[in-house]
Amino acid sequence: MKALIGTVVDGDGVRKNSAVVIDGPAIRDVVPVERLGEYGVDEVYGGKGYLILPGFVNAHTHVAMAKFRGLGEDVPIERWLNDVIWPAELEWTREEIRRWALLGMAEALSNGSTVINDHYFFAEEIAKAAGELGIRAFVGQTIMDAVEFPIAEPEEGFRFYKRWEKMGELVTPTLAPHATNTVSLELMSEIGEFARERGALIHVHLSQSKGEVLEVKRRYGLSPVEYLQKAGVLGDGLIGVHGIYLDGSEVLLYSKSGATLVHCSLSMAKLEGRMAPIVELFENGTNIALGNDSPNPVGLMDMFTEMRFAGVLNKVWKKRTDVASAREVFRWATLGGAKALGLKAGLIKPGYLADVILLNARKPQFLPGENPYSHIVYSARGSDVELVMVNGEPVYKNGILLKLGKTLEELWEEVRLSLL
Amino acid sequence: MKALIGTVVDGDGVRKNSAVVIDGPAIRDVVPVERLGEYGVDEVYGGKGYLILPGFVNAHTHVAMAKFRGLGEDVPIERWLNDVIWPAELEWTREEIRRWALLGMAEALSNGSTVINDHYFFAEEIAKAAGELGIRAFVGQTIMDAVEFPIAEPEEGFRFYKRWEKMGELVTPTLAPHATNTVSLELMSEIGEFARERGALIHVHLSQSKGEVLEVKRRYGLSPVEYLQKAGVLGDGLIGVHGIYLDGSEVLLYSKSGATLVHCSLSMAKLEGRMAPIVELFENGTNIALGNDSPNPVGLMDMFTEMRFAGVLNKVWKKRTDVASAREVFRWATLGGAKALGLKAGLIKPGYLADVILLNARKPQFLPGENPYSHIVYSARGSDVELVMVNGEPVYKNGILLKLGKTLEELWEEVRLSLL
Repeated sequence: MKALIGTVVDGDGVRKNSAVVIDGPAIRDVVPVERLGEYGVDEVYGGKGYLILPGFVNAHTHVAMAKFRGLGEDVPIERWLNDVIWPAELEWTREEIRRWALLGMAEALSNGSTVINDHYFFAEEIAKAAGELGIRAFVGQTIMDAVEFPIAEPEEGFRFYKRWEKMGELVTPTLAPHATNTVSLELMSEIGEFARERGALIHVHLSQSKGEVLEVKRRYGLSPVEYLQKAGVLGDGLIGVHGIYLDGSEVLLYSKSGATLVHCSLSMAKLEGRMAPIVELFENGTNIALGNDSPNPVGLMDMFTEMRFAGVLNKVWKKRTDVASAREVFRWATLGGAKALGLKAGLIKPGYLADVILLNARKPQFLPGENPYSHIVYSARGSDVELVMVNGEPVYKNGILLKLGKTLEELWEEVRLSLL
Repeated sequence: MKALIGTVVDGDGVRKNSAVVIDGPAIRDVVPVERLGEYGVDEVYGGKGYLILPGFVNAHTHVAMAKFRGLGEDVPIERWLNDVIWPAELEWTREEIRRWALLGMAEALSNGSTVINDHYFFAEEIAKAAGELGIRAFVGQTIMDAVEFPIAEPEEGFRFYKRWEKMGELVTPTLAPHATNTVSLELMSEIGEFARERGALIHVHLSQSKGEVLEVKRRYGLSPVEYLQKAGVLGDGLIGVHGIYLDGSEVLLYSKSGATLVHCSLSMAKLEGRMAPIVELFENGTNIALGNDSPNPVGLMDMFTEMRFAGVLNKVWKKRTDVASAREVFRWATLGGAKALGLKAGLIKPGYLADVILLNARKPQFLPGENPYSHIVYSARGSDVELVMVNGEPVYKNGILLKLGKTLEELWEEVRLSLL
């Protein structure tokens, strides 16, 4: 058995001087540190000045897009997509996808994400990279049929799902229709049927641009959320992402459905200059999760940054300082994502998955220490993460990707050389 | 002489494979690395994968407020000030001020700020702490006479200035009237006269709450900027901070005056849920600088975080993605602050002050590396700073505060123990 020692902070509360005992893939117990002797523990991590948190559930990513980081900066979303991203995507090779996906997810892992939920082309390579790294990964092959895009063959979305359905403990396939305007109602209905038969999750972009809303309206006379309802996919197993232009009635309909909304505040602020009605969705009972989205435009796969922006941007968007509190934002980043993906994770509690991170808080910014939620959301950085455990196994420690057998710097050098 | 090797990035451009040669307190030359042999250099830092940047000018801070970090989270500014901050401030002792000021400025320094511009009570202690640390510090003793506040005796603002005027190379006193509503027009005029006689900078909060604007209007029938003009302080040597509620005519008047506006986007977003008209000020020619403001509410004295928020929050505030570009924000954080304080700094150029930082960019988030401005603003963190040089002398290196002779962790431990 293994143990972590420090102050335990999860969405339910704070416990100082605690030991988290880990047995196999799960948390066995959380006890005052004096009681650690009662367990036959052979590996101990942490100590005074350490924080023990549930790993972050990075509920929407495109990890391979690390290759495009910094390109198309400070331009509107249409130019970003049409002039920068899509032309670049036509150049992908399988080898490159795997290399950059590994880089993007290693970055996320080292910054405290124990789970990613990825949505991209070449899902096969991304799933393999996740396996090499040891991160818990939900992976979907992007499906679209209502736009011409040579690298996206809709059938591969279903085939990928079937291939990976029984494959690995840590990699779970999802169905990943691109968005409400890029997938026909017919294909979306098929996806819904397939998902119901197999208990699959559906991961879809939703209302991320004005153009999307107008197109769905023009084609079907429906709002994007009504479109999802009509296709039979609006419900528990749906993970919708962004929701920037949801109107009041869509907020109510979405909130009643049991679906999750993934909030990627930083990426949408940079690309659209706008926020989704997160406060309204949350107040109406929608499960909110957080995600880094893509290394382009966010720049850094770090859920601490994401939490900080979610806390601040919602305040500015609503011109109210009493929304998106530090504790709530932290719950979105942990429990919200776990709920979306059906994982018993996101809390440090007996029986929960041992997806856990250890923060070295022996640094000026963690003083005075009276409000751990504030310190985690507004003072911590991914670089404070010393240890990341997935499924009870250490996979990252002090700059080393343990399963990969490489340091972050070695990975940087390898990918850098591939660019020359 | 000393040299730094890497890619030089400043507000004027990017130069790969360069050597920055430092002689005494100034930059002597910037040359291709092959030419380094022409100089008699005895200390060399950096190498492949390093970035060399001008140190950040943290143009508005209250470093001692590190003691209050995390207190009064997610509440409006009036409750934050009246219920949390001001009662806590009445408890200060000189020893504590010095301890927490040192912590806050060590944090800022280690995250890449070579200059701070501080505004607080007990300026004497703050100036001394700055001297111990070796940071370049502009320090003003908060002056106010229009509100009752037992720890602020207006005369001390002038006395502090006179005591430190000739004192140190790295510590420069300023005059620090609190705000336009907490200082009478009479006293503000006196400050103006004193400043003109001695060539002093004036550092003042400006239009940071609706209440301030209403009070100045009621008392004098003036807007806050008109009040500054009437007091004779609006001009070159004025550093106004925040400017949240400036109206259109104030923006024009301010922009014509030659004064600087310090933008602290994160603190104001958290406390007021609002942004200043930074885009309008900038477009009308106002010199913009950036500052971390106070560890409460910002959580972390890190100008990388500040740049990231300035880039993103202005986009959301204007609902436009083509404002506050990465390069512009970086210029505000370096050149804007240097200009405000009258320093020949903020560029990596012969004859400029050797206030320089070295970033270890041998990390996944710095790939692909084609847009250094984006990587600096959106991917870098203060924890990537390996070396900080002030006035040509290394003062921070890999976790060690060189002049203080302590690691950041030792400082953390010392201050933590003082709380027990």
